[in-house]
Amino acid sequence: MQSGAPDSSSTNTNKIGERRLAILSSHIQPSPITLSPSMATSSDEKAAALSTTPSDSPTIFDKIISKEIPSNIVYEDEKALAFRDISPQAPTHIIIIPKVKDGLTRLSNAEERHVEILGHLLYIAKLVAKQESLDNGFRIVINDGPLGCQSVYHLHVHLLGGRQMNWPPG
Amino acid sequence: MQSGAPDSSSTNTNKIGERRLAILSSHIQPSPITLSPSMATSSDEKAAALSTTPSDSPTIFDKIISKEIPSNIVYEDEKALAFRDISPQAPTHIIIIPKVKDGLTRLSNAEERHVEILGHLLYIAKLVAKQESLDNGFRIVINDGPLGCQSVYHLHVHLLGGRQMNWPPG
Repeated sequence: MQSGAPDSSSTNTNKIGERRLAILSSHIQPSPITLSPSMATSSDEKAAALSTTPSDSPTIFDKIISKEIPSNIVYEDEKALAFRDISPQAPTHIIIIPKVKDGLTRLSNAEERHVEILGHLLYIAKLVAKQESLDNGFRIVINDGPLGCQSVYHLHVHLLGGRQMNWPPG
Repeated sequence: MQSGAPDSSSTNTNKIGERRLAILSSHIQPSPITLSPSMATSSDEKAAALSTTPSDSPTIFDKIISKEIPSNIVYEDEKALAFRDISPQAPTHIIIIPKVKDGLTRLSNAEERHVEILGHLLYIAKLVAKQESLDNGFRIVINDGPLGCQSVYHLHVHLLGGRQMNWPPG
């Protein structure tokens, strides 16, 4: 290791963080750089999901919660935050997250102690759907792991509405 | 009204019930009649959703809960039931429902008192996913209303896994 260089763990974390920031920033804020159209396509969501290693490391959502990275917040309370997905798959596409991850990197890591926050996230989804006037319906999606297309390992609920959703759901 | 005929409300309910049973039975049990292939296609799920009037009436799920209609149950506890969707959209496709509807026809009807059961349903989804060895991921979907493609007005959680899920989610 070179003198003064960060340890390899930190370097790796930074590299992963930068790469994921480049890919994922398109989901939560207007990017400061011009993205090619393909950067915002659905295949990139899947590509991001498949190139992401599930982990308990901090994610870009921590910076959204801390307001270090701006996002278009539509709802906030003590336990949850809801903001618009910058790469929307429907006229209304909002992401709802717990402010404290508490091990909930993904739904498959849920323990009984998480029942209350899980229910709260769905209840907030209902409140936000009402706030967004999605009176004719909407879809809730939670992706888990690579096969589920999860790209950020901080459990999050997708709320999609404003168009006819189709079947199968992806 | 003809003498002896059921009142129109009852007749309508029966007609709606029969029509929906014909369409929806494909979701929960092998049908006693031979369905044409098109009866089980995804477009029929959407067609069923669009032809269903949201209501608080009993649904086919009540008969699944009471075991009046057989289903392939994979998990059951005091509060929830999980059974295989007979029209699966993935190698594993399971529906998780609250045993007591308590007004939860759809997520948009959720009240604060439902937070615990909503969280419980997601936690059961996690348990069932583990039981089904969906270790590489899965997707959770909750449809609300016609635009969300909801075809049965008893809140239910879809658990899909065993294949790469895609984006957008329908």
